[in-house]
Amino acid sequence: MRPRRYIGEDHARPDSPDKVAGKAVYIHDMVRPGMLYGKIKFSEHAHARIVSIDTSKAERLPGVKCVITGANTPQVRVGFLRDNLALKRDRVRQFRDEVAAVAAIDPDIAAEAVDLIEVEYEPLPAVFDPVEALAPGAPLVHEIDPRGRPCNTNRLPLDYGHCTGDIDEARRRSAFVVEGDFSTPVVQQACMGTAGCIAEFDMSGNLTMWAKTQIPFLAQRDFNRALMEMGLPGNNSRVIVPALGGGFGTGLDTHCYEYIAILLAHASGHAVKVVYDREEEFAYLSPRQSARTHIVQGCDRDGRLTFRDVRVLQDNGAYASWGATYPTVMLVPITSLYTVPVVRFQAEIVYTNNTYCQAMRGYGNPEVTWAIESNLDDLAEAAGIDPFELRRLNCNRPDTTTPMGLKISTCGLDQCLDATGEKLGWAQRRAADRRTNGDKPRKRRGVGMASLIHVGGSGKIYKSDASGIILKLDDYANVNVYYGGVEMGQGLHSSLSLAVADALGVTPAQVHINETDTGTCPWDVGTHASRGAFMACNAAILASDKLRARIFQWCKQLYPEATDFDLVDSVITLGAANGPSKQLELAKLLRAIHFRDDGDMLTETVFYDPPNELPNWKTGIGNMSATYTFGTQGVEVEVDEETGDIEILRMVSAIDVGRVLNRQTLEGQVYGGIAQGIGYALYEEVKMHKGRILNPGFTDYKIPTAAEMAFPIDLVFVETDDAHGPFGAKGVGEPGLVPTAPAVANAVYDAVGVRITDLPITPEKVLAALAQRD
Amino acid sequence: MRPRRYIGEDHARPDSPDKVAGKAVYIHDMVRPGMLYGKIKFSEHAHARIVSIDTSKAERLPGVKCVITGANTPQVRVGFLRDNLALKRDRVRQFRDEVAAVAAIDPDIAAEAVDLIEVEYEPLPAVFDPVEALAPGAPLVHEIDPRGRPCNTNRLPLDYGHCTGDIDEARRRSAFVVEGDFSTPVVQQACMGTAGCIAEFDMSGNLTMWAKTQIPFLAQRDFNRALMEMGLPGNNSRVIVPALGGGFGTGLDTHCYEYIAILLAHASGHAVKVVYDREEEFAYLSPRQSARTHIVQGCDRDGRLTFRDVRVLQDNGAYASWGATYPTVMLVPITSLYTVPVVRFQAEIVYTNNTYCQAMRGYGNPEVTWAIESNLDDLAEAAGIDPFELRRLNCNRPDTTTPMGLKISTCGLDQCLDATGEKLGWAQRRAADRRTNGDKPRKRRGVGMASLIHVGGSGKIYKSDASGIILKLDDYANVNVYYGGVEMGQGLHSSLSLAVADALGVTPAQVHINETDTGTCPWDVGTHASRGAFMACNAAILASDKLRARIFQWCKQLYPEATDFDLVDSVITLGAANGPSKQLELAKLLRAIHFRDDGDMLTETVFYDPPNELPNWKTGIGNMSATYTFGTQGVEVEVDEETGDIEILRMVSAIDVGRVLNRQTLEGQVYGGIAQGIGYALYEEVKMHKGRILNPGFTDYKIPTAAEMAFPIDLVFVETDDAHGPFGAKGVGEPGLVPTAPAVANAVYDAVGVRITDLPITPEKVLAALAQRD
Repeated sequence: MRPRRYIGEDHARPDSPDKVAGKAVYIHDMVRPGMLYGKIKFSEHAHARIVSIDTSKAERLPGVKCVITGANTPQVRVGFLRDNLALKRDRVRQFRDEVAAVAAIDPDIAAEAVDLIEVEYEPLPAVFDPVEALAPGAPLVHEIDPRGRPCNTNRLPLDYGHCTGDIDEARRRSAFVVEGDFSTPVVQQACMGTAGCIAEFDMSGNLTMWAKTQIPFLAQRDFNRALMEMGLPGNNSRVIVPALGGGFGTGLDTHCYEYIAILLAHASGHAVKVVYDREEEFAYLSPRQSARTHIVQGCDRDGRLTFRDVRVLQDNGAYASWGATYPTVMLVPITSLYTVPVVRFQAEIVYTNNTYCQAMRGYGNPEVTWAIESNLDDLAEAAGIDPFELRRLNCNRPDTTTPMGLKISTCGLDQCLDATGEKLGWAQRRAADRRTNGDKPRKRRGVGMASLIHVGGSGKIYKSDASGIILKLDDYANVNVYYGGVEMGQGLHSSLSLAVADALGVTPAQVHINETDTGTCPWDVGTHASRGAFMACNAAILASDKLRARIFQWCKQLYPEATDFDLVDSVITLGAANGPSKQLELAKLLRAIHFRDDGDMLTETVFYDPPNELPNWKTGIGNMSATYTFGTQGVEVEVDEETGDIEILRMVSAIDVGRVLNRQTLEGQVYGGIAQGIGYALYEEVKMHKGRILNPGFTDYKIPTAAEMAFPIDLVFVETDDAHGPFGAKGVGEPGLVPTAPAVANAVYDAVGVRITDLPITPEKVLAALAQRD
Repeated sequence: MRPRRYIGEDHARPDSPDKVAGKAVYIHDMVRPGMLYGKIKFSEHAHARIVSIDTSKAERLPGVKCVITGANTPQVRVGFLRDNLALKRDRVRQFRDEVAAVAAIDPDIAAEAVDLIEVEYEPLPAVFDPVEALAPGAPLVHEIDPRGRPCNTNRLPLDYGHCTGDIDEARRRSAFVVEGDFSTPVVQQACMGTAGCIAEFDMSGNLTMWAKTQIPFLAQRDFNRALMEMGLPGNNSRVIVPALGGGFGTGLDTHCYEYIAILLAHASGHAVKVVYDREEEFAYLSPRQSARTHIVQGCDRDGRLTFRDVRVLQDNGAYASWGATYPTVMLVPITSLYTVPVVRFQAEIVYTNNTYCQAMRGYGNPEVTWAIESNLDDLAEAAGIDPFELRRLNCNRPDTTTPMGLKISTCGLDQCLDATGEKLGWAQRRAADRRTNGDKPRKRRGVGMASLIHVGGSGKIYKSDASGIILKLDDYANVNVYYGGVEMGQGLHSSLSLAVADALGVTPAQVHINETDTGTCPWDVGTHASRGAFMACNAAILASDKLRARIFQWCKQLYPEATDFDLVDSVITLGAANGPSKQLELAKLLRAIHFRDDGDMLTETVFYDPPNELPNWKTGIGNMSATYTFGTQGVEVEVDEETGDIEILRMVSAIDVGRVLNRQTLEGQVYGGIAQGIGYALYEEVKMHKGRILNPGFTDYKIPTAAEMAFPIDLVFVETDDAHGPFGAKGVGEPGLVPTAPAVANAVYDAVGVRITDLPITPEKVLAALAQRD
């Protein structure tokens, strides 16, 4: 194990003071010289032909600098399948479709101008249910595919599948088989900081975008393509990421509002800022994909899993985002959560006239873990085995390969299960007092648990999964770190600064992380797949090793009597074979190297490409991550049989984190994940009526607040010290959220004997199920 | 010679379109969130004790956020000798001394608040003439030196000198000896963009400064020291340089206004901007040092120079800037302009209660070249030799070492002299029609010339004279260039982008130069000493060579059949031994390298330390530059004997530039230098009365405009292809200005027979001299 002075301890985040003091600069705070404010006119129909757009009144409003529509701007294609246009030309396919936009000298004038734009529509038949959308004769959301070919289905041209072993055979040979349908709703990422950007052109046609993005370099690629489509001579865009108020997947795609800002900036010749207000964020940004999962699982007489067969139907909405690739990550738990020898998976992704959706934390994993882990309790019941025992029996093991080809290097799932069982008091509480609760007969208590597997060593879903880094030492032994991953509130810069401090041998205060900026940072595929700290810290270690080697080489040259060298906290120790060791300030050495003839200053760069594979989408095979994170959550609930209310009494969350990097941010990640998991389990759902979002705001869209989260949470960090992980650590950005909902559902079942299969588990659903039960 | 596709041709500057369109962001354009506006209260006396400062009225003014004085802020030392305080405590020593400052929500309120500050002074005796300042009993500008020791002289504790050979002996053996006193005035750098900065602290006590500086990294060092003096825990400042509207030396020091912005930012907790208006720029920033030079030169019967003996007295003003080190560069022409075997030099730098001065373009060279080249014409006359012939006879030669130890590698001075003589029609015009001019008897024509030597391969005046660079290639073969030198309007980014394009093999449009920022750029000592293009392009070539090696290494691996490789304009040519060569887009190769297992993206960094030496200040020995630039200017004037008016009829400027990098920016540099030289020769002078500047603005301070510059200028670029120069080029930033004034003075002498020895050569001085002549 690497020596660790800061890693593993409890550290305040370097960005916290500025954020707490209101000094961090978010896109909302930014102003560029001569900047205009952009505002978008959205569709008034779920599906309609645009007959005409009259912008004349808007154009005449004083303070309006330009009004653009699809008719007076170049056609800019948007999206993972490029099936969307920044400004729609002849047709709208959802309520959030962008039909026009305005740039004005202040936001109020821009808003007034947007209201003055008159659009005439001819409504078209629409489809809002993915099953209906697949039925013959359903209205087609797209009549032409992105390549211009006629299209006669609402099914997206993306084939995902997996098959290991003979499902029918396995099913026949199983002692117990259970089957179920589970669904998850569209939910909001609910970032505290809303979406926004500033687009600015120089006079050579190069674009600078200040963007709320998690993928600065893929965004740069997208914007470069837009510049080409706009016929601009240069092909260079630069993406700079200001402070981010949360990402959770909203920043995994580029968005029409960004291209509209680009078009407005180009048309007006000014910098243009587009920032969504909370209602726009809810109604006109992409929430989480919903999914319907059909699952069948079986086990033998002893409870050993024999097969898992899963079909997923994903409502994509009107256009495709990267969220359409959810199935690549769904494959991870489907093929590899617990040891299951035979697996089949099929996914269908379907266009509808609903708002188009996007990825969110977990990237498909919570959707199918919801089905797997709920259904597993049913299987345990069918087999007459305690659910804990069933899980323990089928637990993943280190140094194994799963049907998907995932190479499980380290695995602490057994310890996570044990810790959860123990801390929750599983043996005492499970079923023992089921449906009884002393003096509160209406209220019944129960316990449940669920586990997770997730990518923990990045997750390859693009041609490159790498991250570059540059470390630059100055005369004061301060280190400038250039890293292209995004600090979006999760604590990446905290882990990274501790990693540089420990790996290089300086103090965390000497580590200064530069802005995320495609102009200055080396390439990075983006911050997703729980890869942030894993990639950043691994890259930092490699670059630090190179720097240390050069530092020690200089030591050898300048202090030939020294035979061995160490560097900790910016102090070099020169050990001599015969004699006492000597200490030397790193800064002093650096100045000595610099201020001499043929001087040098030390900068090192590393491009770290992790040892993982891009899965084959059709076969569903590929070791997509360098290592995998495991965990178990346990929950005790109290269900009010009269009201259907569910109260969480306490939770346990045990995670195999490889190693703790910064305990404080790690805890923050898991607490935050659990809060989102509780929201997913109990409260959150974007309500739509014929494609129109009915609850675009925190008044009607309920996320857990402190009041809902006021129950004790026991965190257990299992340290398995993964060989691929930086200091042994695995990625933990997403896992906190993944198994929460099924753990709650299993606890509800334990308490009152009803199985809720569609999230969220609202009091109405509980009451309805109780009525059926009784 | 390196292959050149862009270097040497005529290219528009990459920054011009934005500057012309008003899109370049100068400090004046910048706004930070929550930013306040700072304004400074200056002294009302040239020398006085501060009795009391009453800030109460200012503090009560609505909109004022903080008012600071020396009494309520930490003591922050400023300046090359750290003999200045950001805010004066007990004493003012010049009219521009800063006694208090205000930060307010808008600039008008700040100005109003400054007027409300009441300062009581007790005036002290002052001294304004450097000779008087050295006299016994003169008022002491500083009674304690920066180290806290009592001080009994106004002479600065800086010893400069040089002595090669025996002056007295050489003088005795000379056939002809002439002697003279020459003086140069205080002049303004007259940047179109005034001085300014924004200081902003994060909550960890780290400082970001957006500064109009030419020395971002030395400024960072200075600011770091201020943070230490302020008792802040962190020691990190970051300096970012926005677009600059000229430098000319104003940015070679950090200034009190910058530390005041820092103190205001720290006291208020807000970003604080301080920007000087034109009057402040004139009255409260540091103009060029004035100098009085006594010179004696001798030659033998044939006109061969036998010795040069120079004493310089420099009026430093009240505090020391880097300008106090002028003598290190004065040494270059004094020891090395023409071949002179015996040289002596002494410099005295003296505190007075005048405004303190600073370096400007040429850094002492124009001041002494004024004396050398004026005096040389006197020597020629004394010896009865044509001044052109005298110069030609004593011309520097390649592969020689001068008394200072300068290693002259290439030298085109002979060609410069010949070209100037020829283009000016020296033989025909010189003396031939002296004091006669056909039908305009009042107006007499004459020709004159003067030459120069200047550092052309950087100029070492600090412990390190290096420049780092980083080049980063992306998937599109765009190159991000990180370079710490400053584009201040001179065209550095143009040369640099052409150098990267040619050295690497891409197009100039693919080269994108990042902001100058100590956080992202490698260290650089600063942009001065005509070193910008020399250093940047040399660093770029070295880094490009490393990148090309890696590119070709990948080619070898991916195309094993290819035997040789070239890369031009982003197209790789793969040559095969047996078969036709093949072409490949660089961008395509880069993507192939990136999008593979264990992929890579190419970034290279180089720290280029040129082969030069820091001169020993006491001996005046040291090869301070890697190469030297030579040149000659010739001028024809018409002098009106009735009014004293001087009209420039035409000029020739021949420079040994090593090689042309970008003809357009090279011409711009020389034209601009000549314009400043003409201003120095004929118009410019900061008028002071008892330390108060009388002409703080362009109304009363006259610089040449298009009207004054409407004469033909013949530019000749002599290409000597220097081995140390990038593509053979030498630095040419300053030379344009250096010999202009003596060339004009020599032409005036040729026309009307009067020798003006103190600049500027005003009509009044000419008339007075004519009166004495006749």
